[in-house]
Amino acid sequence: MKSEQILPDSWTSHRDALRVEIEEAIDNGPSSLRNMLRYHMGWVDERGSPCNGSYGKFVRPILCLLSCQAVGGETSQIMPAAAALELIHKFSLIHDDIEDASQERHHRPTVWILWGQSQAINAGDAMLTLAFSTLFKLRKNGMSDERIVNSGRTLSLACLDLCDGQYLDLEYEARLDITIADYLEMAAKKTAALFAASTSLGAYLGSKDTRLESAFHLFGRELGMAYQIRDDIMGIWGTEDSTGKSASDIAQKKKTLPVVYALRSNNGEARQRLERLYSQQSLEGEDIALVTRILGDLGARNYAEDLAEQYYRKALAQLDAIRLDPASQAPLIETAGFLLKRDF
Amino acid sequence: MKSEQILPDSWTSHRDALRVEIEEAIDNGPSSLRNMLRYHMGWVDERGSPCNGSYGKFVRPILCLLSCQAVGGETSQIMPAAAALELIHKFSLIHDDIEDASQERHHRPTVWILWGQSQAINAGDAMLTLAFSTLFKLRKNGMSDERIVNSGRTLSLACLDLCDGQYLDLEYEARLDITIADYLEMAAKKTAALFAASTSLGAYLGSKDTRLESAFHLFGRELGMAYQIRDDIMGIWGTEDSTGKSASDIAQKKKTLPVVYALRSNNGEARQRLERLYSQQSLEGEDIALVTRILGDLGARNYAEDLAEQYYRKALAQLDAIRLDPASQAPLIETAGFLLKRDF
Repeated sequence: MKSEQILPDSWTSHRDALRVEIEEAIDNGPSSLRNMLRYHMGWVDERGSPCNGSYGKFVRPILCLLSCQAVGGETSQIMPAAAALELIHKFSLIHDDIEDASQERHHRPTVWILWGQSQAINAGDAMLTLAFSTLFKLRKNGMSDERIVNSGRTLSLACLDLCDGQYLDLEYEARLDITIADYLEMAAKKTAALFAASTSLGAYLGSKDTRLESAFHLFGRELGMAYQIRDDIMGIWGTEDSTGKSASDIAQKKKTLPVVYALRSNNGEARQRLERLYSQQSLEGEDIALVTRILGDLGARNYAEDLAEQYYRKALAQLDAIRLDPASQAPLIETAGFLLKRDF
Repeated sequence: MKSEQILPDSWTSHRDALRVEIEEAIDNGPSSLRNMLRYHMGWVDERGSPCNGSYGKFVRPILCLLSCQAVGGETSQIMPAAAALELIHKFSLIHDDIEDASQERHHRPTVWILWGQSQAINAGDAMLTLAFSTLFKLRKNGMSDERIVNSGRTLSLACLDLCDGQYLDLEYEARLDITIADYLEMAAKKTAALFAASTSLGAYLGSKDTRLESAFHLFGRELGMAYQIRDDIMGIWGTEDSTGKSASDIAQKKKTLPVVYALRSNNGEARQRLERLYSQQSLEGEDIALVTRILGDLGARNYAEDLAEQYYRKALAQLDAIRLDPASQAPLIETAGFLLKRDF
């Protein structure tokens, strides 16, 4: 819960409005699956009783709304698009947890642990579908059908990238020969594509200036890369309390950036120890601590932090180039900085 | 393959055009998942080499195209919508096979058997998303954005019903107290909703007469109920050769209509034998033969055939009421009759 308290002020009212929109989306979906989806959002316990846990940071929809705001748009009008982005993200987590056999998320049992794999697959399918049915609600807010169709295309293409990135993420687990370029391709698809869709949709729906869309797409893409790399770092060196996971990236032999970097190190001895560890069937306890130490010794953390910083600077350069009103874009820039330094 | 030869003549050219449209949709998706999706469609073997098996009957998109034709529409214009319907149906089969732990479909290993559960979940997600990205291609065919948004809504609502029906299907497996009404609710959501979306989209996109959409919705819904009941009958009494499955509905304790009917029979002795069989952990070999015999003795097959016939007649009555051009609607009526009598 600690991380909730330090979210930027500009997020507060947006998060409340998003919760209302997403709640309405889920309540309009199949009643049979409602409890599973509300549980996954962190709003209720497994019996459906409200719980006072986190109700989601809503990073992607917040970026969408702040991008809309930055170009002078009306955020309340595009709320269904922002909600759709969160629903895409959250559906992917339900399925990722099954695919990675993750038993916990945010210190709670995952959906498949509570309701079984079959119903969890089904609940994820419903949440993915809800993203589209929610997007179409933009019409009620006076958005033109032309913009809705274009937004639907953007959303579906980002979701296809997500599946592509997930394919790579799973496929890399069993491999030791992943290059930095391979990693960057995976991160671009698994994470940066939905970030790019979030910021570009916000700008596209918030302004009639079509030039803005591609600049915001690039901004979101670079920011998404920085975010994923920060995620990789926190997955290894973050405290379990703040990330809600205990070095599960290492346990699952995920090819995160620090690992990929270290597996290509010139330090032959350390690299070979790492290769031996990553050739084991599984990694647990002491092995995880050992991997973490080797990664640190090889400078993998510094390398990853530098690269995240580079992507962050490239993201800001995209915004700089289009000369927005400084006051309108301030919350977006503050948020970008926050995402790079966050401890969750 | 035998069933391929007896498909109605009116399907032939539509199936070829659908294959082209669906192939293009899949080829525009992530290249990493292409082979899995093409395999699932029945076009290639697991190594990606073309195989000369069935390439899909395309029941739902055919109904969409024939409905369009029946109202005087141009089928080539709505091909992306028809393809989207098939992609929704086929995505659900990838995930159903995981959820039901089905190892074979059409005498071939299922996707999850060949590529593992994780990648199969992911491939299904991509196929569901492709349905929407393909639907948006209607614009290239000159369809208005208003109609595309409305079609997107129809498709997403049908897909939500599908998830709802799948929830019930899974939930009923462990229960013995399913009523005929429970069964009909499941069939309406799991099957009839997508049939209704298929026929109503065909009529909606094929004509400016908005009155037709709801009549075609009801037509498709009733036909979908008849289709599902026929499916239930074939799942028990069809030959393995024609259905490609060996009484797997009974093995999985699915609450198909004949079973639901028999479990509520007045014949106490036979019903109790059935209840005991369905209370077992699993049903195999001789037990399946025994269940089949009891169902026959209790008249469950006749009951199901009668009910399918009733839905079929109600479906036709919907079409009768709107007085279409007899020549235009003939292929649709022929197809409805074929679906009721088919042996697959």
